[in-house]
Amino acid sequence: MNYTITLNPAIDRLIFLDEKMENRKTNRITDVAYDIGGKGTHGSYAMTKLNVKNKALGFMGGLNSDKFQRILETKGISNGFTTVKGQATRECYVVIDRDSTGTTMLTEKGLKVSRNDVDTFQTNLKKIVNYGDFVLIAGSLPVGFFLEDLKKMIKILKETGCFVACDLSGDALKLATEVGVDFIKPNEFEIRELNDKEEELIPFLKKLNKKISYIVVSLGQEGSYCIHDGEVYRVKSPFVKEVNDTGAGDCFVGAFLAGIIMKQTIEETLRLASACAASKVMHNDSSTFNLNEVERLIHQVEISKY
Amino acid sequence: MNYTITLNPAIDRLIFLDEKMENRKTNRITDVAYDIGGKGTHGSYAMTKLNVKNKALGFMGGLNSDKFQRILETKGISNGFTTVKGQATRECYVVIDRDSTGTTMLTEKGLKVSRNDVDTFQTNLKKIVNYGDFVLIAGSLPVGFFLEDLKKMIKILKETGCFVACDLSGDALKLATEVGVDFIKPNEFEIRELNDKEEELIPFLKKLNKKISYIVVSLGQEGSYCIHDGEVYRVKSPFVKEVNDTGAGDCFVGAFLAGIIMKQTIEETLRLASACAASKVMHNDSSTFNLNEVERLIHQVEISKY
Repeated sequence: MNYTITLNPAIDRLIFLDEKMENRKTNRITDVAYDIGGKGTHGSYAMTKLNVKNKALGFMGGLNSDKFQRILETKGISNGFTTVKGQATRECYVVIDRDSTGTTMLTEKGLKVSRNDVDTFQTNLKKIVNYGDFVLIAGSLPVGFFLEDLKKMIKILKETGCFVACDLSGDALKLATEVGVDFIKPNEFEIRELNDKEEELIPFLKKLNKKISYIVVSLGQEGSYCIHDGEVYRVKSPFVKEVNDTGAGDCFVGAFLAGIIMKQTIEETLRLASACAASKVMHNDSSTFNLNEVERLIHQVEISKY
Repeated sequence: MNYTITLNPAIDRLIFLDEKMENRKTNRITDVAYDIGGKGTHGSYAMTKLNVKNKALGFMGGLNSDKFQRILETKGISNGFTTVKGQATRECYVVIDRDSTGTTMLTEKGLKVSRNDVDTFQTNLKKIVNYGDFVLIAGSLPVGFFLEDLKKMIKILKETGCFVACDLSGDALKLATEVGVDFIKPNEFEIRELNDKEEELIPFLKKLNKKISYIVVSLGQEGSYCIHDGEVYRVKSPFVKEVNDTGAGDCFVGAFLAGIIMKQTIEETLRLASACAASKVMHNDSSTFNLNEVERLIHQVEISKY
């Protein structure tokens, strides 16, 4: 089985306005919808939609687990979250106006996990993963989950022989890069942070690639670079009308892993991931994309070797 | 007993940020708190705090009535809301940053009431009100509650011999002004809408005052005008450090009615209402003010006869 791990998931509350949000004004909400939040769950959604079986893991708050489970069910995401008693899964607010001048995201800090919660989670993880499983660790760490815990988790997965993909940032990304995983997806800013000796970018990435098999450097709307097997690919996303860009990167990661799991070539994988993310941007929630759109957009992805 | 009627109340979700909210950015929430929303409930809170007994009435959604009641209880607001089955009391979002460059308010439309809900409410109201009761009708009308219903409600109250105060806007304010009530609180814009023949302002207000005993024209931070017994009072608010101006007008109305109920002079009443509203602005939720602050601020309110 393949897994995604979202340690600090969220319930995304999508708030729709007819007009641009303004300060010192009563902004009338036209609609409210819910989606699952936290990067790993979006990855699970993308994989599931591409017919790659997987299970979403992580922590969820006991206080609002009904609501959380209901959204996962609506989205068709198979899951086995560890319940944190007396805590609530955080809510994040995504404000979207009709003219879509870019969404505004407000995120709560999230739940606090105890030593006992972390132990339960790690013990369970160790039991269920098998050699060859693909595991995506994505999103922020909850309060009480330390870098040491992340290190231990990556160690469990590596020792089992899993493919370990990490969509992390800050110190967590740094750690994953140091201990060595199979996939990372830093953005331009994060890659500069990793490259602390300020080496030239491409040689630096190629060197990193010896330790990390797949590196995707995301450039937002500009697309991405991918470094794999010592080759550098420049990927340009199709141009689409942006409705809500929340979750586009997570969708890319989920679809990218799905491509690898389905044993597509790296170029096919990049094409698929980029088309899925572009379709996502055209939808108003944080995860949805459309397979018909993907089929059309896949031909509009431009890939060149660097 | 005195009553406030909030036909379309809300649960205010206060979202605190350390920095100014920005588009296309992840804005990290530092704290989330809840307060009661909908103008009438704020009036009830102010009256209660000033030791004027009252009961908050109106509609509340059955789906989240537990949460709604819990907040009313925390705020010490005695109430008898009519439950609308299968509907939820709306949530409103108030985004407040630490530098407090003005709050951003996002409001949901709210619940939909049926003919049966309206009948239940009006029948109950008729039973409980008595001659001499003060009744404040404040805030927006829910979907399904028509101007005719408002007219009927005002008629019930007037026939019983209640003092009818209305903090309404748009067509509802127009209706209240036409049928004649005891108190209205339009803002500058609304008074211009009422004065459709574009008469000179002060003579127009004095004429209106023959039908409506108390008229307060709010000017936001600039204070207000009050017209009573043919006299025009200019009220200047004390200068305070603004934290959250949400609910300041509602606080003014509640404290103003409390002043009249306590048989204070009009000048004392205006002083009290203005000081309570100024104290409210210094607090971060939608209703709280502090009696010690009020005692200090009351001397800083400037009142002059026009």
